[in-house]
Amino acid sequence: MIKTDILIIGAGPTGLFAVFEAGLLKLKCHLIDALPQPGGQCSEIYPKKPIYDIPGFPEVLAGDLVNNLMKQIEPFQPGFTLGERADTIEKLDDGSFIVTTEKGTKHHAPIVAIAGGLGSFEPRKPPITNISNFEDKGVEYIIRDPELYRNKNVIISGGGDSALDWSIFLTDVAKSVTLVHRRNEFRGALDSVEKVQELKNLGKIELITPAEVIGLVGNNKLEEVVIKQGAEVFNRECDHFIPLFGLAPKLGPIADWGLEIEKNAIKVDNTLDYQTNIPGIYAIGDVNTYPGKLKLILCGFHEATLMCQSAYQRIFPDKRYVMKYTTVGGVEGFDGSKKEAPKAVIKSID
Amino acid sequence: MIKTDILIIGAGPTGLFAVFEAGLLKLKCHLIDALPQPGGQCSEIYPKKPIYDIPGFPEVLAGDLVNNLMKQIEPFQPGFTLGERADTIEKLDDGSFIVTTEKGTKHHAPIVAIAGGLGSFEPRKPPITNISNFEDKGVEYIIRDPELYRNKNVIISGGGDSALDWSIFLTDVAKSVTLVHRRNEFRGALDSVEKVQELKNLGKIELITPAEVIGLVGNNKLEEVVIKQGAEVFNRECDHFIPLFGLAPKLGPIADWGLEIEKNAIKVDNTLDYQTNIPGIYAIGDVNTYPGKLKLILCGFHEATLMCQSAYQRIFPDKRYVMKYTTVGGVEGFDGSKKEAPKAVIKSID
Ligand SMILES: Cc1cc2nc3c(=O)[nH]c(=O)nc-3n(C[C@H](O)[C@H](O)[C@H](O)COP(=O)(O)OP(=O)(O)OC[C@H]3O[C@@H](n4cnc5c(N)ncnc54)[C@H](O)[C@@H]3O)c2cc1C
Ligand SMILES: Cc1cc2nc3c(=O)[nH]c(=O)nc-3n(C[C@H](O)[C@H](O)[C@H](O)COP(=O)(O)OP(=O)(O)OC[C@H]3O[C@@H](n4cnc5c(N)ncnc54)[C@H](O)[C@@H]3O)c2cc1C
Repeated sequence: MIKTDILIIGAGPTGLFAVFEAGLLKLKCHLIDALPQPGGQCSEIYPKKPIYDIPGFPEVLAGDLVNNLMKQIEPFQPGFTLGERADTIEKLDDGSFIVTTEKGTKHHAPIVAIAGGLGSFEPRKPPITNISNFEDKGVEYIIRDPELYRNKNVIISGGGDSALDWSIFLTDVAKSVTLVHRRNEFRGALDSVEKVQELKNLGKIELITPAEVIGLVGNNKLEEVVIKQGAEVFNRECDHFIPLFGLAPKLGPIADWGLEIEKNAIKVDNTLDYQTNIPGIYAIGDVNTYPGKLKLILCGFHEATLMCQSAYQRIFPDKRYVMKYTTVGGVEGFDGSKKEAPKAVIKSID
Repeated sequence: MIKTDILIIGAGPTGLFAVFEAGLLKLKCHLIDALPQPGGQCSEIYPKKPIYDIPGFPEVLAGDLVNNLMKQIEPFQPGFTLGERADTIEKLDDGSFIVTTEKGTKHHAPIVAIAGGLGSFEPRKPPITNISNFEDKGVEYIIRDPELYRNKNVIISGGGDSALDWSIFLTDVAKSVTLVHRRNEFRGALDSVEKVQELKNLGKIELITPAEVIGLVGNNKLEEVVIKQGAEVFNRECDHFIPLFGLAPKLGPIADWGLEIEKNAIKVDNTLDYQTNIPGIYAIGDVNTYPGKLKLILCGFHEATLMCQSAYQRIFPDKRYVMKYTTVGGVEGFDGSKKEAPKAVIKSID
């Protein structure tokens, strides 16, 4: 059982920054995310694209913003349960919660902050009837660890940035990389399309277009895929089939936690602390809704900050927290680190 | 008469960022600030100190944050009335406002956003009875333009960072620099104290301590100051006397604008848009109060953003604004500039 002060569901920018604000209040956080990496939409959908409306950054790549946030929260040593979806919640008699993932990992905390964005990212699966039989037995929808593909024969399917970029990346790892796409045209960064063209010319990526994988064959693990190209249908041996058709967010199991839902988001009390209708559960960032709500990163930062103050009061009803500016009080990490502004001296001149 | 869409009172971080959010909505802004430079508390009180809780910046100097914000809003060409305090407001029949500064500059806008922080910074004046007779006739409490002191004899009074740093700076500009302080000890950055010691040793700064300026002499303009050092009292010729005893913020004239005031701040409706009790006037950042309010820079950013949406609806009651992510829609400056993410291509590979 993982124990923490604030259990954060969703490691997008909002959830990450909540760790910092909680840390200033000496509260520890643990984050659960269905994706294998932190950063939410920023990391999963547009890591290499610039954002222009993060205050103080005339321009910042979404991936860099996430890296900066990871660095900012480092002193507060957050725990992570990555690649697992939070599925169920149970309220104990003492008012605390147990949240369990679909893989059975249990987390216990007095406060739950849902920072689930548009929901847990779930892969769009191709309509191949027996595909679920091969999941994690040769079929992966998300690449969690590229080492899995070392010296393997890999077939990737898809026509967007993910399919292009992973095909490029895996040429250095896998024994062979084959890219199957139902059109001749790919849609992605110019760089990536050109790089795939180049690797194809060098014989490092095999392209099969316009074509589709329509069947999977194997005995308890994937051995062959069935490819349809025009009128022709043929089998191809491989160790892995990776369909990269994008991830679609789904509010998912959280929708059944007894929270008030409106417009596919969780209703919160924006007059005070972004608390949901269940005391002790907050919702911050894209996942919540209230009058005038804007689904912007900077709004999630503010919501996370106010939420942490309220969580503190809930955990320590008798303490009165006096806010100190970070510039004045510094930042004391749980790892013993201390950042602080250089102090003024009092010194005579003679 | 200066005309704009949103008239912002206070050019601190909150007011500055409001320019950006307004700009995304194609609304123009003009800012008034009592200080000679933008940045509010960040520029005036702690420009060289690090802030640790700006999201995405593990550490940023307050002055650099302001520079970044200035760069971020540049495409939206804000106007500035600096060094003037907004004193009076008048509501016209059409619901728009005229705001006049103490120097008589008039501004006209349908929306007023008060981002006045802790208030307009007013200098702490030394208790010299006739000092007001010499204001702007040789006595200045704020250095607006160092060129005023070129080849002049300058006497600075004070024992903190401002007194130290301006004494250092003006040695290269003025004919002579004398620093008077009532103690031998100065309180400031170690660097600054050591630099003053060095300049004193070189004869470039004259130090008179422990001493006080207790009188001013002159015929329509300052000619001499009267200095008391221990039991001794003597006169010293000079062109300028600059007492740098710090600036204290005062809510000031805004307190008389008919706005609801609570705890020396302006009450706003945080359930929607940070509007005050007077429709068309908003209050954002440190200057406002509502349940759970935190006087933090990141909160001002959020408030500014929601305020702009509401202002847009007030100015264009019949338009429905559909928010576009900056990453997707880019940033179109009023100066014709355009920033946007590199577009994906659709390209065949053969
Ligand atoms: C193309 C694009 C461009 C954008 N441009 C901008 C922009 O310019 N400016 C701006 O401010 N915003 C922009 N956004 C929106 C911005 O990315 C979001 O506002 C932001 O990511 C929200 O952060 P969050 O932390 O609230 O949620 P998210 O980033 O969505 O993260 C939520 C995380 O929670 C996880 N999760 C959800 N449910 C569960 C569960 N049950 N179990 C485990 N994990 C779960 C998800 O997997 C996800 O990783 C853009 C979005 C897109 C798609
Ligand atoms: C030493 C110190 C350390 C701090 N550290 C942190 C930190 O680590 N993190 C953090 O988030 N915050 C910190 N703060 C607080 C932070 O600086 C403020 O929250 C922030 O400056 C508020 O921004 P603002 O734009 O709302 O107001 P301000 O920065 O106060 O700006 C308001 C401006 O309005 C002007 N003004 C007011 N009335 C009038 C008028 N009638 N006419 C003309 N001009 C007017 C003032 O002159 C001023 O320039 C710190 C503050 C101090 C003093």
